[in-house]
Amino acid sequence: MKIEERLKKLRIKLPPAPKPVGSYGTSVKVGDMIYLSGTGSVDLAEFKCVGKVGRELTLEQGYAAARGAILNHLSTLKAEIGDLDRVEQIVKVVGYIQCTTDFYRQPEVMNGASDLLVEIFKEKGIHARTAIGVNSVPFNIPVEVEMIVKVKSK
Amino acid sequence: MKIEERLKKLRIKLPPAPKPVGSYGTSVKVGDMIYLSGTGSVDLAEFKCVGKVGRELTLEQGYAAARGAILNHLSTLKAEIGDLDRVEQIVKVVGYIQCTTDFYRQPEVMNGASDLLVEIFKEKGIHARTAIGVNSVPFNIPVEVEMIVKVKSK
Amino acid sequence: MKIEERLKKLRIKLPPAPKPVGSYGTSVKVGDMIYLSGTGSVDLAEFKCVGKVGRELTLEQGYAAARGAILNHLSTLKAEIGDLDRVEQIVKVVGYIQCTTDFYRQPEVMNGASDLLVEIFKEKGIHARTAIGVNSVPFNIPVEVEMIVKVKSK
Repeated sequence: MKIEERLKKLRIKLPPAPKPVGSYGTSVKVGDMIYLSGTGSVDLAEFKCVGKVGRELTLEQGYAAARGAILNHLSTLKAEIGDLDRVEQIVKVVGYIQCTTDFYRQPEVMNGASDLLVEIFKEKGIHARTAIGVNSVPFNIPVEVEMIVKVKSK
Repeated sequence: MKIEERLKKLRIKLPPAPKPVGSYGTSVKVGDMIYLSGTGSVDLAEFKCVGKVGRELTLEQGYAAARGAILNHLSTLKAEIGDLDRVEQIVKVVGYIQCTTDFYRQPEVMNGASDLLVEIFKEKGIHARTAIGVNSVPFNIPVEVEMIVKVKSK
Repeated sequence: MKIEERLKKLRIKLPPAPKPVGSYGTSVKVGDMIYLSGTGSVDLAEFKCVGKVGRELTLEQGYAAARGAILNHLSTLKAEIGDLDRVEQIVKVVGYIQCTTDFYRQPEVMNGASDLLVEIFKEKGIHARTAIGVNSVPFNIPVEVEMIVKVKSK
């Protein structure tokens, strides 16, 4: 099944690609590798939540925010490579969870990102991952995610 | 000397390879590069310590935990490539140290990882590195380490 | 214009390349990719500030520190590749900002790094970026920056 058909079946509509918030690019392509800048879910109308996981926000809200970050990444990726069927492998995902000092369930939060990647890309979506807690994320959003993706040559 | 002989000489016995704690892989291979997911020493019977470096844990305990994370990585790597003599270069190591806000000796903690890599792989073990403090690491472990490794083609 | 001429025009004099503070290298080259270890501005006489952004330090001081980290990186890079005109693309920059838990303007701090890279390398300086807040950075410096750079083959 084509990725676009799968997105439709999963009732996923990609948001507009996020813009950089400084003098950098949202993605850089070197050879067949795409490096995607850290992004969150802040632009998405449906994920307007801000705050620390474990204080203002629950694990479930963090999960939704991690999922939302991937939606933004897929928009950026599509703008970069034209067709999401060119994705050969989601290589690496790093998730920074803005949380309290006694919150230790970052992997469950990041599953919001990982579950969606595997749902969409199946075995090509299985990635190496780091999930970590931090005291502060830009714009007070709960999750920032960065990715490296390998694409097929044209 | 073969890496396995060196491990024996150093009296290092690799633990069972850690399992992912979510919908991702513990390693992903793209071309000759292996991306290893963030891992700690939590599975290792000999490193059961949890807590923040600078509060519950000393710098020395952090050092031991960083060393333990590398043991887990080497198990994952061996499972991925079959033979540790295929390692051409340890390319990049990132260490996230769970610590108090006034602890600034993360590089000394991460030397637990770096010293072991150089001990085992000699000049092939010399890597680029980032060591950083964070307020919270999954499972309340003191150190999470991720790696990128270049291997020889078969 | 040659990069060295541009540096001169911008009145930028590169500092001595920083030394590693442990058993690792300040850079590792694999193929055409250079991985640069996390570094800050602590060695630079003109950026002696330490502390958390949002408490002891202002956003502007953080910006200057991020810029200083890039100066150190360029010294390392020049030592590694000989000639900065061999830079083909600044691929990825990660900035860890040591800040208070209620400071959310990390992207503006990291623009100190990004603005300088684009000023020097123009379109080759446009990179993927992650900016994140952390509770503690080695040596109590405000910013630690790591980079990946693609260079032309000789």
